[in-house]
Amino acid sequence: MATELKNLTKRSENYSQWYNELVVKADLAEQSAVRGCMVIKPYGYAIWEKMQRTLDTMFKETGVQNTYFPLLIPKSYLCREAEHVEGFAKECAVVTHYRLKNDPNGTGVVVDPDARLEEELIIRPTSETIIWGTYKNWIQSYRDLPVLCNQWANVMRWEMRTRMFLRTAEFLWQEGHCAHATAEESEARTVQMINLYAQFAEKYMAMPVITGVKSANERFAGALNTYTIEAMMQDGKALQSGTSHNLGQNFGKAFDVTFVNKDNKPEYVWGNSWGVSTRLMGALIMSHSDDNGLVLPPHLAPIQVVIVPIFKNAEQLAEITKTVNPIVDELRALGISVKYDDADNKRPGFKFADYELKGIPVRLAIGARDIANGTVEVMRRDTLEKQIEPLEGIAKFVADLLEEIQNNIYQKALKHREEMTRTVETYDEFKTEIEKGGFILAHWDGTTETEEKIKEETKATIRCIPLDGDTTPGKCMVTGKPSARRVIFARNY
Amino acid sequence: MATELKNLTKRSENYSQWYNELVVKADLAEQSAVRGCMVIKPYGYAIWEKMQRTLDTMFKETGVQNTYFPLLIPKSYLCREAEHVEGFAKECAVVTHYRLKNDPNGTGVVVDPDARLEEELIIRPTSETIIWGTYKNWIQSYRDLPVLCNQWANVMRWEMRTRMFLRTAEFLWQEGHCAHATAEESEARTVQMINLYAQFAEKYMAMPVITGVKSANERFAGALNTYTIEAMMQDGKALQSGTSHNLGQNFGKAFDVTFVNKDNKPEYVWGNSWGVSTRLMGALIMSHSDDNGLVLPPHLAPIQVVIVPIFKNAEQLAEITKTVNPIVDELRALGISVKYDDADNKRPGFKFADYELKGIPVRLAIGARDIANGTVEVMRRDTLEKQIEPLEGIAKFVADLLEEIQNNIYQKALKHREEMTRTVETYDEFKTEIEKGGFILAHWDGTTETEEKIKEETKATIRCIPLDGDTTPGKCMVTGKPSARRVIFARNY
Repeated sequence: MATELKNLTKRSENYSQWYNELVVKADLAEQSAVRGCMVIKPYGYAIWEKMQRTLDTMFKETGVQNTYFPLLIPKSYLCREAEHVEGFAKECAVVTHYRLKNDPNGTGVVVDPDARLEEELIIRPTSETIIWGTYKNWIQSYRDLPVLCNQWANVMRWEMRTRMFLRTAEFLWQEGHCAHATAEESEARTVQMINLYAQFAEKYMAMPVITGVKSANERFAGALNTYTIEAMMQDGKALQSGTSHNLGQNFGKAFDVTFVNKDNKPEYVWGNSWGVSTRLMGALIMSHSDDNGLVLPPHLAPIQVVIVPIFKNAEQLAEITKTVNPIVDELRALGISVKYDDADNKRPGFKFADYELKGIPVRLAIGARDIANGTVEVMRRDTLEKQIEPLEGIAKFVADLLEEIQNNIYQKALKHREEMTRTVETYDEFKTEIEKGGFILAHWDGTTETEEKIKEETKATIRCIPLDGDTTPGKCMVTGKPSARRVIFARNY
Repeated sequence: MATELKNLTKRSENYSQWYNELVVKADLAEQSAVRGCMVIKPYGYAIWEKMQRTLDTMFKETGVQNTYFPLLIPKSYLCREAEHVEGFAKECAVVTHYRLKNDPNGTGVVVDPDARLEEELIIRPTSETIIWGTYKNWIQSYRDLPVLCNQWANVMRWEMRTRMFLRTAEFLWQEGHCAHATAEESEARTVQMINLYAQFAEKYMAMPVITGVKSANERFAGALNTYTIEAMMQDGKALQSGTSHNLGQNFGKAFDVTFVNKDNKPEYVWGNSWGVSTRLMGALIMSHSDDNGLVLPPHLAPIQVVIVPIFKNAEQLAEITKTVNPIVDELRALGISVKYDDADNKRPGFKFADYELKGIPVRLAIGARDIANGTVEVMRRDTLEKQIEPLEGIAKFVADLLEEIQNNIYQKALKHREEMTRTVETYDEFKTEIEKGGFILAHWDGTTETEEKIKEETKATIRCIPLDGDTTPGKCMVTGKPSARRVIFARNY
């Protein structure tokens, strides 16, 4: 019905087109007039807001505090850390002037050449440089450490090929930036945050992830080590969903941030940074949704339950409403968000299709006959199954069903990932298997050369060296050189 | 004690310096490496976050939804509304390039001349243009209206003279943008939102405000009418604290946003926009704080109660902690945020001064003798008064005290404003009175010429034409021409 109504492309026909259409048709986001920048619409933003609130609470429980650092970064700051500038310089939006003036040769306005900045400013692609430039003034002694800051912010990376939520020139994210007195403490925080992201992905997004370490090639520009969570989308491609970087003393050194340690000796400060972005919206969509539209995990759905009355006239509606009102109250008292859609200018069939498209986890439909029978029709969005349930105790039933749906879509995604994960021994086998999508566990000699060769020949990258799983050594599938353990290869978003 | 410790300038010596010092010493914010941009530190951000959460809930209760529109605006968009571009073009940060490259003549990076944008992009000074450009695609029929969107965002206006929170190049704010089918509905929403701001200011910030209409001269660039809330700071200067603009059909016309009305005829959409910013932080500070530091209204204090144990040894501390723990639990159960500061590396006197500086509304101090007596010392920050209270029932006592403090600082600010508000008849009288600060109620002929003359000669501006109060007509104090009613003049931030 939703598919007919909204004419959504089937996943099996063209997965990429299905995604692009769904983002727009489900009212999540749309392209803006500015190349590569999107408008996040109210429904999409409401989901992002639920993610934000949840993560924000989780961060604060670990002692992290929110802050706000400037949007603009002096060009010279970006250059202080050699790898960092190398990684970001080629995709920076640059502010060169601070004023427009009336066009002397016509109408409209032009850049005022007299208002050129002495030093160009960069719109932050990430904030390590401006933040470590500030930390220099905050940190003198080990007593000032750790500093555990986070900010929710917009950032900009001038990507050439963009896709809504997955890769946009401007995106929203959070970036945590911690400063520590010891290498051990900084490493522990780096790992703590990637584990927090994994917990969020699995518990709230119902999205299984593999936690691991990036190869040198895929590391954050300026990090010693990057931890990642990698999820598998329905089409078998990998999506990097969150990263946590151990920066060692790189930014401490670049910005001369030192502290006097417990032995009264000066030392460079140790740091880490970690972030997730609106990319998670793309991950959420491609983990669970189907040909009828979005499938949202109940823990992140802005509306968890919708109730649609089936009525022929105002009298019937009034009777249904009388029955529904206490159910709405009861559901809300259980902390469940409910919408009672009694609009009379849309037919139930239209409403059903629309709520399917929007991924509302549970739909209750109730008509005059149901009231006579003391029943209600319950539809769960994940399986599209309908069942008739007694009105008596329906709130509790729905509360349990929401948890069952949350668990079911997680298990479904996990099963999909497991089915799409294979182990290969030879490079030939690898080349065949990678065409089928999914994660391939293979031995690799640990060199960037081999990694680059594989990428060039198969478009597959090393997603991560998993923290868990089989650690048996072997021989690289390409060079035959020793391999410490199998790593995960995939094509990716 | 705090003053000694932190060496804060007295308000009577130099109010402006007191403000600047307090912002830094209370750990609210500091200057950044980027001219005119500040870093909002964790404590300052926590207060802003409480403001945000409160306002966000209030907005949503009126049907407003959050969204996100792009940071960058094409230059041509800005020019679509003539007054709007006139108002903002002279303070715009302009992005001209999207890439840096290695400096061919040395180290570091330079702007890549090959990466020049075809059309320059402006960092939003406000988002009417990009939003109305988008609304064009959202609105076809009266059934699509109203559209009630808000965003929490950073904006940039290249101000030449900046002061932290009060006037910064980049600031944080929310901007609401509503589209309506009728002029009446749009006007009603414009007024609804200024009233919401007034309610927030008075109920949460404990800051009395006068709601009124701006003169044509002080109107938002592109509005038919601007409503404002004006507060009086301790030094008698006015601070514009929130505005709501009736945009009429100006942006509907500029961006060709039309809809088919109920009579099946095309019509331009009616609009309004409304916003408050981190400027409210400055207003909060200058409404209540004193020579010992911040005074925060309990409804916005991130920590409402601090408990400081007075102990000589670990044994005493353990005993105090045993008594304090259930009190902490009880306070939290009442929804009160409490910090129990049992750190043993700082003396109580240091802690007292620090919490005074930070404006924690209530401090409890408890020592071995108090436990023996079943009492606790309670200090309220607004009056700095101490009293001994029984431990029995202390949570309830504190809860009531917080409300009393909230009310007391509001009343104090209101009394101050009333004492500093005078009515004058002649321009000579006006010139004398304006030197003493405060609000001056005077007759004005309604012309921009007279308004400009007064501003030039006295540095006073018309803050607003109040919605309430005396509406007796009279004669302009400057020209003697007819005046519809008295308006409020003041010098302002």
